[in-house]
Amino acid sequence: MADKQDEKKITPRSEDFAGWYNDIVLRAELADYSPVRGCIVFRPDGFAIWEALRDELDRRIKKTGARNAYFPVFIPQSFLKKEAQHVEGFAPEVAVVTHGGGKELEEPLIVRPTSETIINHMFAQWIHSHRDLPLMVNQWCNVVRWEMRTRIFLRTAEFLWQEGHTAHATRDEAERETLTMLEVYRNFAEEFLAIPIAAGRKSAAERFPGAEETYTIESLMGDGRALQCGTSHFLGQNFARAFEIRFLDENNQMVHPWQTSWGVSTRLLGAIIMTHGDDQGLRLPPAVASTQAVIVPIWRKADDRDAVLKAARAALSALEKADIRARLDEREGVTPGFKYNDWEMRGVPLRIEIGPRDVASGEAVMARRDIAGAAGKSKASLEGIAGHAKSLLAEIQKNLLLQARAAMTANTHQVDSYARLQEQMSGEGGGGFADIYWCGRAECETKIREETRATCRAIPLNQSLVAGKCVVCGEPASERALFAKAY
Amino acid sequence: MADKQDEKKITPRSEDFAGWYNDIVLRAELADYSPVRGCIVFRPDGFAIWEALRDELDRRIKKTGARNAYFPVFIPQSFLKKEAQHVEGFAPEVAVVTHGGGKELEEPLIVRPTSETIINHMFAQWIHSHRDLPLMVNQWCNVVRWEMRTRIFLRTAEFLWQEGHTAHATRDEAERETLTMLEVYRNFAEEFLAIPIAAGRKSAAERFPGAEETYTIESLMGDGRALQCGTSHFLGQNFARAFEIRFLDENNQMVHPWQTSWGVSTRLLGAIIMTHGDDQGLRLPPAVASTQAVIVPIWRKADDRDAVLKAARAALSALEKADIRARLDEREGVTPGFKYNDWEMRGVPLRIEIGPRDVASGEAVMARRDIAGAAGKSKASLEGIAGHAKSLLAEIQKNLLLQARAAMTANTHQVDSYARLQEQMSGEGGGGFADIYWCGRAECETKIREETRATCRAIPLNQSLVAGKCVVCGEPASERALFAKAY
Repeated sequence: MADKQDEKKITPRSEDFAGWYNDIVLRAELADYSPVRGCIVFRPDGFAIWEALRDELDRRIKKTGARNAYFPVFIPQSFLKKEAQHVEGFAPEVAVVTHGGGKELEEPLIVRPTSETIINHMFAQWIHSHRDLPLMVNQWCNVVRWEMRTRIFLRTAEFLWQEGHTAHATRDEAERETLTMLEVYRNFAEEFLAIPIAAGRKSAAERFPGAEETYTIESLMGDGRALQCGTSHFLGQNFARAFEIRFLDENNQMVHPWQTSWGVSTRLLGAIIMTHGDDQGLRLPPAVASTQAVIVPIWRKADDRDAVLKAARAALSALEKADIRARLDEREGVTPGFKYNDWEMRGVPLRIEIGPRDVASGEAVMARRDIAGAAGKSKASLEGIAGHAKSLLAEIQKNLLLQARAAMTANTHQVDSYARLQEQMSGEGGGGFADIYWCGRAECETKIREETRATCRAIPLNQSLVAGKCVVCGEPASERALFAKAY
Repeated sequence: MADKQDEKKITPRSEDFAGWYNDIVLRAELADYSPVRGCIVFRPDGFAIWEALRDELDRRIKKTGARNAYFPVFIPQSFLKKEAQHVEGFAPEVAVVTHGGGKELEEPLIVRPTSETIINHMFAQWIHSHRDLPLMVNQWCNVVRWEMRTRIFLRTAEFLWQEGHTAHATRDEAERETLTMLEVYRNFAEEFLAIPIAAGRKSAAERFPGAEETYTIESLMGDGRALQCGTSHFLGQNFARAFEIRFLDENNQMVHPWQTSWGVSTRLLGAIIMTHGDDQGLRLPPAVASTQAVIVPIWRKADDRDAVLKAARAALSALEKADIRARLDEREGVTPGFKYNDWEMRGVPLRIEIGPRDVASGEAVMARRDIAGAAGKSKASLEGIAGHAKSLLAEIQKNLLLQARAAMTANTHQVDSYARLQEQMSGEGGGGFADIYWCGRAECETKIREETRATCRAIPLNQSLVAGKCVVCGEPASERALFAKAY
């Protein structure tokens, strides 16, 4: 940890966002490149963030009534072809297993890019009667989509995710489920990851291949580009028809169920970095930080060492007893200043400094990661340190969301002319969200994409009743949509 | 749930162990066959058992200092070849990806059968100094080994597992780690899964490909066959040499670290079924049961319905408040007797019956799944039902281990002649453990395997100091070993 390389500064975010992002990922030891093209290694400090968010989201998903299951990683190639839009969307990016146990396979297997097909094949065997519905399963697994231009966490050939798949007796119930999960995701992203969300439905062009409607939670990263953080799909009866899922309804008719699927992935780790990080490095919301508070003991004279370490260890024990994930940095041979920078870079939300004068006065300095400099520092009595830390961590969690929401608001512009839209999206970086009236026609969407590189990120669910005119064609538009350049 | 098929009895265990096993797996909805050869589907009731045991084992693994990480599912084919024994062991059973993104790959990728190679490739980049050691990572993931004769949970092409990989500065420390994890597994299997364990080292023939020493936890299933439940390998410097992992030790010498790897898999679900199940179906240890107690309300007259359901719901709420995973079976149209059989088949450890007379007397009948018939029944006051249930569940957890240990002891025979060994292993089923003096030579081991189908399961760690004579060749033998026919 005290290697020379840690003393190098990371690239400033304002200078080179992509370079800054990679520096954080590698230097904070969140992930590493692997010898397999497009695949990454999740290192313990990165995987711990995934574990924290996975465990919390898993609890929330189970609360909705879904249960976890596990389906094969391999899918017969013929399955993918059963739903026309689905195969069109996924066939170009699959990995294909052609040999197993030393022999060529009769039918090649694809490594799942998503599991609608194999899960619905099983649903067809499990669903017979309306009493078998709703059927709601969720799966945490790895998926593979062959990507040529990869970026750690954001776009990788293999990634980890959860995919929920549900079947319902009525269209209405399935539509409600789609929106229930959208809200679970929105709430989770804001409360737990402190990532502000714009939720809405996707345009037809941006829909999941095979869905009737796709809903999304989008956020705006530090460079003004949008990131899709999760999606919830209303599949209608498309897969039920393709896989011949039928049940005897209450009127004794054989009918197809109505379905949904929904997922979030390890891309959320990228969202956390790009939403909260700053020039000093990572800033982790306390809820996902594997180290929430780090204690740095300070002494110059050997005489002070014992008293300082004794107080620091007592503080550590008090924090741990209060279920705060804390650690004490006892490294010798590196300066306190080096330690400050190191833990700031790694995103620890709260730093606690204890020196000889603090011990004498029975106090410690609490330095918040979310507020730089003196403004983020306060004193706490050593005696009540756990309670103080707990309330600071709660404040930091809230404040990171407020800061991010303020940035998103500042980067969202209601634009009422095509020229203004072009202006907003000009330049190399992002351009934030453009909140525009759009007539909903594909031609106007395509024109925007081709000329500004902005795509339709979300059509918000709650629309004002006032109609307007499409910024592209000037025709009447009943809805506003958020456009942005996206990851 | 109330389908006709549930009324069919499962095959008695004594008649046809394999048929009985499959009946339980399918009827208790633990798993299902999939359309992909050798791959299975873990259904929610089966996956919930895996989740319970995974979460507990994960806590225990983290306590030893290992941290979770995640490495790519694909491994370059050339990696497998770097360790001679490793490639020999795994090459015949790998699945090979030859195409990605519509193109043929320059180098085929194999789907990981185990991750020593890719993890050690990364270790070579992370380990430079003795200060980087010990490095201890664990990974929960799917692995693939092409199997032709598959059996749900026990031998499948794809399975789930955890694999720990550690690197240490000294041989001694790595050897200690190997044994530490063996003990973690042994203790976990006995305490949490109620599966009695014979722990020991493997013979050279049964070692993990690439290991210097393999340790194992073995148990005896209900049919007298042994099942390997987990292994811990001392890898020496074999992989460190193959992947050129070197570090600067405290004497400023560049040396190879010493390594271990260790794992358990979803095969443990099979172990639970085959250790505890009986003719009525599954019997789950309370620690892993997703439903620990089921309440069955009983009434004949409509008049009694409300009072019984009211008492049953109050009991449910009391159990839930005490963190007991409980459910109330309110199904109508099926008899209480049907419900008893159904929940017994599904392995629920504790059944609580509440009828009109019970309500009147303020009591409930508690029926233990681990003790059949009247002997397993007792009364509990409705008022104190949660406390009563909690202590019964603790007793059941212990008793299942005692019962299984008694069966294992009864099926373990100290055999002092080859004729007796042959006799013990004759017949179609298992034959239990034969505890024999073995000289340690491969010839004698091979003779036993070829003539009796029993293999060396474990050479126990604690040996008596008395030497004896090999049951095969009569030469001096310093150690006893457990031989058995195995899954």
